[in-house]
Amino acid sequence: MTEKLSTISRPPELSVPALLERSRELCMPSLREAVGQLASPMDAVAAYHFGWTDRQGKPSAGDGGKMLRPALALISAQAAGAPAGGVRGGVAVELVHNFSLLHDDFMDGDETRRYRATAWTVFSPTLAILTGDALLALASDVLLSNRSDGVSPSDRARAVQRLTTASRRLIDGQARDLSFEHHSQISVQQCLEMEADKTAALLACACAIGAVLAGADDVTADALGRFGHHMGLAFQAVDDLLGIWGAPESTGKPHWGDLRRRKKSLPVCAALADGGKASRQLAGLIAAPGGHGDQDDQQLAKRAFLIEAAGGRTWTQHEARRQHEEALAALNEVSMPEGVRESFTALAEFVIKRTR
Amino acid sequence: MTEKLSTISRPPELSVPALLERSRELCMPSLREAVGQLASPMDAVAAYHFGWTDRQGKPSAGDGGKMLRPALALISAQAAGAPAGGVRGGVAVELVHNFSLLHDDFMDGDETRRYRATAWTVFSPTLAILTGDALLALASDVLLSNRSDGVSPSDRARAVQRLTTASRRLIDGQARDLSFEHHSQISVQQCLEMEADKTAALLACACAIGAVLAGADDVTADALGRFGHHMGLAFQAVDDLLGIWGAPESTGKPHWGDLRRRKKSLPVCAALADGGKASRQLAGLIAAPGGHGDQDDQQLAKRAFLIEAAGGRTWTQHEARRQHEEALAALNEVSMPEGVRESFTALAEFVIKRTR
Repeated sequence: MTEKLSTISRPPELSVPALLERSRELCMPSLREAVGQLASPMDAVAAYHFGWTDRQGKPSAGDGGKMLRPALALISAQAAGAPAGGVRGGVAVELVHNFSLLHDDFMDGDETRRYRATAWTVFSPTLAILTGDALLALASDVLLSNRSDGVSPSDRARAVQRLTTASRRLIDGQARDLSFEHHSQISVQQCLEMEADKTAALLACACAIGAVLAGADDVTADALGRFGHHMGLAFQAVDDLLGIWGAPESTGKPHWGDLRRRKKSLPVCAALADGGKASRQLAGLIAAPGGHGDQDDQQLAKRAFLIEAAGGRTWTQHEARRQHEEALAALNEVSMPEGVRESFTALAEFVIKRTR
Repeated sequence: MTEKLSTISRPPELSVPALLERSRELCMPSLREAVGQLASPMDAVAAYHFGWTDRQGKPSAGDGGKMLRPALALISAQAAGAPAGGVRGGVAVELVHNFSLLHDDFMDGDETRRYRATAWTVFSPTLAILTGDALLALASDVLLSNRSDGVSPSDRARAVQRLTTASRRLIDGQARDLSFEHHSQISVQQCLEMEADKTAALLACACAIGAVLAGADDVTADALGRFGHHMGLAFQAVDDLLGIWGAPESTGKPHWGDLRRRKKSLPVCAALADGGKASRQLAGLIAAPGGHGDQDDQQLAKRAFLIEAAGGRTWTQHEARRQHEEALAALNEVSMPEGVRESFTALAEFVIKRTR
């Protein structure tokens, strides 16, 4: 009884599943409506990609990703005291996120995402690219359109500008991430800068866009953006750890995919920077001619072992915690209504504790 | 001497080469500046694509396309009496146009454009796609950024909305154009609707965006857009004619590329709709299993002959003229300063008389 009472009295904003579920409930209808505006066959490709249909186009139980970005946009709007614009912002950010997934999966040659065959393998590279293009353009349309949510035209324009800047950084980051695969030595700093663009910029935008749409000033939006930036770097550090030591049945991605592709993720860069015996041995394996050992599970296991032995795993875990602390510090710069800070904090903690 | 005098006294706006040259002079510095903001290696891919560098990255004599869309945007701003915004609008539209070229060349498997190897063949599909993505996002940034050209924030937002809508239609049109290649019978109406999206929407946007940035009302911008829409359909009809009967040394594209790919362009759709003997023979050839005869120049020559025999060439020539007239009628709905209408008219005439 006591336990039940404490569950009830706990503000619902503090539970991550509840936050993500609310994000789904509030944003999914608008997301589906927006995607439904795409012309055929891009509407079908997008519906498959989001997990709403199977490859035959029949409705499916899947519901796509975690809806983390829309959840952040919703809380962002609450932080500025006018929650209505959060849905619009959340949908727009989620569209840009999925534009990048559709294009990246093809560029990276990834055949599986969220336990399912990627769109370019089911349809075609062409249709995956076109659908990505369409989602990117649609995102601006969602932000700019006339709706009854009371967002002013000038705030819509400010929101588009932030989203466009984030999209550009995301594209730049992906370009650098791909180019790193062909370089044997990338510094930790270069890796962090790439991840700030590829991952953190859009999460920062999600944390700021709701407030912008709610009419918050740029100082407030920028501080929320800094929270999102550091949370994004923590998110990516954890992603990099999962990319090597995560369980495929939990991540939905193939085992050792990052190592197979010689991705210069944080643990790899940190291990290479160490310079000790394990580090040098790792460098030798990674500098071997392309393809060499990339398909050999034993070799990949050895790379993982050497990364850990050279301190890459510990360094990245520490970096995730450090970025998490920086995120909380940025959040403290902004005053916001009761309970909102706790929602942000809960999601930031979820991000570094997740296993998928 | 008389001839020289008459050249001098002729208003410069009436000469198409002068209009395109002015478009290049005014917009090229801003276009290069915008593209220069792209991160490496996308800046290099874009510079090659635009014809500013060769494949080694050395400056090249080439200068890319005709700069028709920026020219229209400049005149559009003049039509509304405040030319300054035209450069911004022209650059943004040209960026979207080149986003679509980069992606379409890869999707269509085109290896040559403007007499040069296409970007995806020189760099990689991945870099061509990323650079296209970056140009699309950059276009919105150009429209929204703070500049000293006196364009108000609300007009910038209106311009982005028009450009986004045009981009979405362009993507939809490309999707349909590709899907038509796998259908043996496409009606003339379906083809016209596809071309309205794929080609006319962005030209319509170019004709309206300058006026929007200059503060014109939506009624004026919409009328200018209708002029651009019909001019765009005329442009595409001529493009379809050149795609079959154009000289490769003049178009810069491979001979019979459209027929080889079984594109359902206007002459083909009109010929198939005819239903006579040549039409039925053509339908038989086009319905043959994929690849059959597509590499055989004699077969392609026969297809071209049958399209002409079934009236497809004449019908399309007539359609180009009809759309040209509709364009001029739309233009007459708008009052504009002296000389501006003549500039629009000259470009519309150029569009239907061009040979490349």
